[in-house]
Formats: sequence, C-alpha cells, structure tokens
Amino acid sequence: MSKYIVGVDLGGTNVKTAIVTEEKKVVAKESRPTDAAAGPAAVMDLMAAAVKELAKQNNIAMSDVLAVGLGAPGPMNWQTGIVYSPPNLPGWNNVPLADEMRKRLGVPCFIDNDANVACYGEYWMGAGQGAESIVVFTLGTGVGGGIVVFNQLLRGIDGTAAELGHLTVQREGRLCGCGAKGCLEAYASVTGMVRTAREGWDAAETALKEMCGDDNEKLTGKMIYQAAASGDAYAKHVFDETAIWLGLGAASMVNALNPERIILCGGMINAGDMLFDTVRKTVRENAFEVPAKRCEILPAGLGEDAGVLGCAGCALARYQEENA
Amino acid sequence: MSKYIVGVDLGGTNVKTAIVTEEKKVVAKESRPTDAAAGPAAVMDLMAAAVKELAKQNNIAMSDVLAVGLGAPGPMNWQTGIVYSPPNLPGWNNVPLADEMRKRLGVPCFIDNDANVACYGEYWMGAGQGAESIVVFTLGTGVGGGIVVFNQLLRGIDGTAAELGHLTVQREGRLCGCGAKGCLEAYASVTGMVRTAREGWDAAETALKEMCGDDNEKLTGKMIYQAAASGDAYAKHVFDETAIWLGLGAASMVNALNPERIILCGGMINAGDMLFDTVRKTVRENAFEVPAKRCEILPAGLGEDAGVLGCAGCALARYQEENA
Repeated sequence: MSKYIVGVDLGGTNVKTAIVTEEKKVVAKESRPTDAAAGPAAVMDLMAAAVKELAKQNNIAMSDVLAVGLGAPGPMNWQTGIVYSPPNLPGWNNVPLADEMRKRLGVPCFIDNDANVACYGEYWMGAGQGAESIVVFTLGTGVGGGIVVFNQLLRGIDGTAAELGHLTVQREGRLCGCGAKGCLEAYASVTGMVRTAREGWDAAETALKEMCGDDNEKLTGKMIYQAAASGDAYAKHVFDETAIWLGLGAASMVNALNPERIILCGGMINAGDMLFDTVRKTVRENAFEVPAKRCEILPAGLGEDAGVLGCAGCALARYQEENA
Repeated sequence: MSKYIVGVDLGGTNVKTAIVTEEKKVVAKESRPTDAAAGPAAVMDLMAAAVKELAKQNNIAMSDVLAVGLGAPGPMNWQTGIVYSPPNLPGWNNVPLADEMRKRLGVPCFIDNDANVACYGEYWMGAGQGAESIVVFTLGTGVGGGIVVFNQLLRGIDGTAAELGHLTVQREGRLCGCGAKGCLEAYASVTGMVRTAREGWDAAETALKEMCGDDNEKLTGKMIYQAAASGDAYAKHVFDETAIWLGLGAASMVNALNPERIILCGGMINAGDMLFDTVRKTVRENAFEVPAKRCEILPAGLGEDAGVLGCAGCALARYQEENA
C-alpha cells in the first residue's frame, strides 16, 4: 500500500497542509489562520493539529505517514531543523522546528525555506516536472529564486543559495534593499517596476496618473499591467523594461547553469505573453544559442500550492536519501 | 594494487599526458607538440602513443589503466564523446574522439571540454580539494568558468554550463565577442582590462604610454600589472576596475550558488593581493553576509597542470559512476 507524505507551509498569515502519496497524488489539502501572535509553541500545536485532523478526515493513520516537510520563511538551518528568526512570526528565535514537530507527530520532520520548497514543488509536480534542472524566479515585492540541478534542490553550503534577486545586473545601479547596488530585484520585482514608472513620471503622458489619483505613491504593479494591456504606451514601456531586466537575469542563469527550464512565479505572470515574449526574446539575444534554444521559459504550474506541495516533495526526497 | 587513470589534455599547441593513481598520486607527466596540421587521425595516433609510452616507461600495463580522460577545446558532446569543431585544430569535424581513442587504447575513454576539466582538476587535487562546491573563473583573453556542486561537475543539460564570462553585469554595456552586451568577459578578461586602459588613454598620465611606445595597440595585461605594481596611479585604477568587475561576477555566483570556494585561474592571478583584495572586498560589499563570509576566494593551486589532472579526475568519476 502506498505511504503518505505531509507538507506544511508555515506563513505569517496561513498554515497550509497537504497530504500526498509517494506517487504524487494529492489526497487532501487545507488551510487555516496561523495565529502568529500566539507564539511558536501554540503555532506548532496548531500545525500538528492540522496534520492530525487532515489525516484522520481521510482515514490515514500517522503510522502510514513517511515524513512531514515543513516550509518556513526566513533564515534557518535546514540540516539541524532550526528556524532562526522568521519575519512575520513574532517570538520565533532559534526554534528547533523539526524536532518540536517530530515530538508532536511521531514521524520524521524536515524543514526548508519557503522559496526552496516552492521551487521544489514546481520541479516535483508543476511546470518543472520531468526536467533534470530548473531555475525559478519568483516575482513579487522582491525577486526570489530556486535552483534544481542533478534532480536535487541546490541549497548551497549554508542553505543560502538561489538568491537570484541579487544577481548584479548593473554596476552602480539602483540601491537594493540588501544594501548592494544594481541587483536584479531592484529592477525586476513589482517594487522595481513601480520604481521604474516613477522615474519617468513627471514627463509621462499616461493613464496611470488618473488611475492612482495623480499620486504615484499609490501606484501598483497591477495598475501598470492593466494600463499596459489597455494600450497605454508609457505603462507598456515600463512593463517591457521590467521584463528585459528579468530576461537579463534569466540569460545569466542560462549561461551559468544551462538549465532545462526556467519557471516564472508570482502575480506578474498573469500578464502572460506580454511578460514571457519579452523575457524569451531577451534570453535569446543575450545567452548562447545552444542553451538559450534548449531552455524553456514557462509560467509556474501550481500557483499558490507550490509551497505546500513542495514541502511534501522535499520531505520525501530527504526521507528517501536518509533511508537509501 | 592500485589502478591508474590517465589524463590527456589536447590543446592546439601541446598534448599533455599524466598518469595518476586512484588515490590521486601523480605517477608521471609529459608534454609533446600536437602537430595539429597533421589532422585528427594523426593527432589521435600521437595521443595514443603518448599514453602507451608514458605507461611503459613507468612499468604500467594498459590492463591496469581503468580509464582515460580526454580534454579538448571547443563545443562537444561529452556524453557521446564527439568533438564538433574545436578552434586551433584544423580538420576536426564531428570526430568521435572517445570511440577512436578507445579503439587505440583498449580502455574506456571519456571526453570533456578544457574549461570543465581544469575546474575539476582544481576540485580534485588543487585549491578546491575537500570542498563540496566550487566556482572557477579563468582569466585570460576571455573569462572561462567551471562549477562543481554536490561534488560533481555541473555540465548542464547540453554540456554548455559555466559560461561565467557571459553573466550580464551591465545592461547595454560593452559589446562582447559573443554578440551580447555587458558580459563580465568584456570587462574582467585581460582583453577587457586593456580595453579599460584604452578608454581613458588620451587624458591619462601614465608610465604605460612609454612602456608601449605610445601605441596602445601594443598594450598588454602584463604591462598594466607591472605599472600598477610600480605605483602608476592610472594603471592601478585600471587594474582595480578589472578586479571590481570580476568581484561583481563572483558576488552574483556567491548569491546564486552559495559555494564553498571561488577559485581564480590564469596569468592575472600572479598579481596576488592586488587582485584578490579587491575581488574579496567587492564580494563582501555585494553578496549576502552569510555566503560571502563562508566563501573562500583563492588562487588556483595546480597552474598549468589543472587541465591534464582534471582529465584524469573526470575520467575516474565517470568510470566509477558507470561501474557503481
């Protein structure tokens, strides 16, 4: 009989849980509020309850669960299972999340950071399925990343790898939130796109001015996309610039890693061809021909579920490795 | 009794051969002119003769050789063992190098490109020994690269990975030989350094003018290094600029891969601290703190022997994988 793996994606707002079979069949999913203010012990109790309840509802005994994978935000040690100090989770300082959850659930528990589990989710069950190597760019307030090579998540020697928002794409360029200048994130994130729109704002003739009540502090990425899609030339220019920067980062990864696929995640991918056409063109123009031709550039396939399913996938991989 | 692996590094000028034990003891090395004009069959005969003669001189029977690793320049299929059309080797078109050498030597033969074998050499026996992951930048006419992660050479899905000279470091920057703009190679190679010196040439007060007879077409990287080391301010500025660009490329790799070590190769590393201090400082300033602190940035340890020893190392790894 098939055994199960459970994924638990811990966010500041919600805890998502999913039960998956070894054969990648999603048996059940649920989501409940994190109640982050209650502190780490209560949140871990809540996560354990979510796992147990979801299992019970689906007539799954915990003895048939091979492993539980936990995704959490912020810096952590994925090997010792300790979460250092996640943003949006007050009171969490050096919490031994894996050990604590193992105590509560009685099965092996593994932790990984949220960007890595989302990447692994796409690799395991999403747009990266069947590929040997993928590079994921997650476009939001920042630009996150994930890398799978040799069919494994590349975590790096300290677990900090795949900070793809912090490839340098312009020497002495825009100041980035990380303190360095010219990072990809400063241009290709939604925040970066809004910044690009503001830079040419005064001279621009654009519907964006009306959309945000002439106050560009209220400008959003969605407004830029909508105006661009409606034919606003300035908004289209701003959107294209953003996609070109992203394409330059993607081209660097094509030349560096020769990956089978690049997968884009986050709200911005709803722009569809308007985004993907420009990214693909920029990669063709800036990367070597053979790896550029080979690398498919695709939208994420799992949407909001990439994280929780990736938690399960990562846990299965680590369980199998430990029991090989 | 220990078995042997043979490395053969095929260059346009010389064929280098080395015999190494499984325990990484270098038993013997030799080098002979390639005689590239004689064409592929003759060059392969010459390589086979070099291997057999070196083995015989050291009382090693070919039956005690586990595998032969061949390094060659230019594009190739490392899996099928076919070399497409290496520069500096006239008449080589789709030569089945691995099969041909196996016919001549009677032992398993493997091919890899010259940048990858040099990287693997440093990982196996040089400055990368004992590390789980390394990134190599080779500084010459261009900027080459190599990546080892998970203790394996990262070749990519088509074998074109690690083209680290073609990370984009400046949008709409200098035109690179590859056709794209703003590649690392256009700034951080020796050629890029000379280009930097020429850009400010007319206004510069520098000893370089006398050194090259006032003809900056005759300017070399060595002149720039020598003038900089002697205290020439302009030459020092040009050298530092080059090192900063390299540091930006290295910082991107630190953020992307969180490698244990970065290793710099090529003549430019003779500049020592003048190069390494600036590269290290630039990485500290531009990469995240944890991976930047972790990553050692070191000069190559094997010099000219990295390629031929890496040929042997790659062959051993592939032999072991096939016979696992």
